[in-house]
Amino acid sequence: MAVPADDLAAGHAVSNLLAEYAACIDADALERWPGFFTGDCLYRITSAFNYARDLPVGIIHADSRRMLEDRVAALRKANIYEKQGYRHIVSVPRILRREGAVVEAEAGFLVVRIMHDGAQDLFATGRYIDRVDFSADTPRFARKIVVLDSEKIDTLLAIPL
Amino acid sequence: MAVPADDLAAGHAVSNLLAEYAACIDADALERWPGFFTGDCLYRITSAFNYARDLPVGIIHADSRRMLEDRVAALRKANIYEKQGYRHIVSVPRILRREGAVVEAEAGFLVVRIMHDGAQDLFATGRYIDRVDFSADTPRFARKIVVLDSEKIDTLLAIPL
Amino acid sequence: MAVPADDLAAGHAVSNLLAEYAACIDADALERWPGFFTGDCLYRITSAFNYARDLPVGIIHADSRRMLEDRVAALRKANIYEKQGYRHIVSVPRILRREGAVVEAEAGFLVVRIMHDGAQDLFATGRYIDRVDFSADTPRFARKIVVLDSEKIDTLLAIPL
Repeated sequence: MAVPADDLAAGHAVSNLLAEYAACIDADALERWPGFFTGDCLYRITSAFNYARDLPVGIIHADSRRMLEDRVAALRKANIYEKQGYRHIVSVPRILRREGAVVEAEAGFLVVRIMHDGAQDLFATGRYIDRVDFSADTPRFARKIVVLDSEKIDTLLAIPL
Repeated sequence: MAVPADDLAAGHAVSNLLAEYAACIDADALERWPGFFTGDCLYRITSAFNYARDLPVGIIHADSRRMLEDRVAALRKANIYEKQGYRHIVSVPRILRREGAVVEAEAGFLVVRIMHDGAQDLFATGRYIDRVDFSADTPRFARKIVVLDSEKIDTLLAIPL
Repeated sequence: MAVPADDLAAGHAVSNLLAEYAACIDADALERWPGFFTGDCLYRITSAFNYARDLPVGIIHADSRRMLEDRVAALRKANIYEKQGYRHIVSVPRILRREGAVVEAEAGFLVVRIMHDGAQDLFATGRYIDRVDFSADTPRFARKIVVLDSEKIDTLLAIPL
């Protein structure tokens, strides 16, 4: 895929990537999820409170694609995730920076959780702060920081966001 | 309208069509709703569970624009719908296929229901799996499958989604 | 910034402006909020019921950027807003009209409120009916009417929408 030549092109490319990413999780195709990241990626889920204070403490922290694969394997084994599904709604991303083949972007999101009995609730809101690498054929997340708006995190939080 | 020449153009066109479609329903302009479909369209509301198993059982099934017109007429007569309104939030669509003047796309959505007394709740989430026909002046849905995430469907479900 | 040459360009520009606007409020950067408006702007929050009947009564009504600055100053002084945050999810805008350097557009939105204790709820849904002025370097809202779907307005409504 071509490196985005301007912010408009970057916006489209990141927006499409986020749509694919969300659809993958919402379809419970978690085995494909690590493929959205580079090999030496950083993936972190944290809260707005901790992020604003630059606290390294996160809810989830992984610094390689391998760790993401391990997480999926653990999830499949634990089998907890089968009881619920997600629906992501992702906003139009804002392009924060472009530098060579790398684009930094931020996008708000909302996740609805659908329980096995059909009950649905507003599970999480926040924003993705992404660094996307366009140097290969397929754009991938070199870094993805998931900043949750609320401090009150469901202790069962385990499915990727 | 021109047939989209690439996925980017197709994405814009489908995204705009979905925005018009959602605005029509949310404005309770239901008489205009069947006009978004081709004459021999297929419109179906089903659940993710049934869709994954290819079960033909749907909550709503219509195989012509005429059936959609009949549905609106019935709704207006029954008058049930007056007690509530919708607000659709539709995600960026993913282009699944382009073939001639036809584009297949998928988009996540969330619908908030606003009751007459002002109460609002998360009514439904799911995805549209659409086949859009660009051969005429205006793009229209040749097929629209509404796949709801939850099995627990409100029995009063009657307004188009 | 260039005046949008067609509806597609206008859609991008308005979509990006709405993304910046929402991110500003959601980041509690309210001091920057009036900067999204022209000096002699009109900003109004009203309900769908009142808007449809052209009733001038609004929940908030301001007819200059100065009034918006005063509102932010009052909010900061009152300190009420510190107890909550917002997350906007804004739909793809529909272009209603283009005339010279002015674009009129409508976009659906949903706002989740995050309370200080971490509780989150569906706060408001509605649509923005915007008139955007592209004659200066930066596009700005010459008019922004926030039409809420529900009549049942939280009496603490004070943060910009």
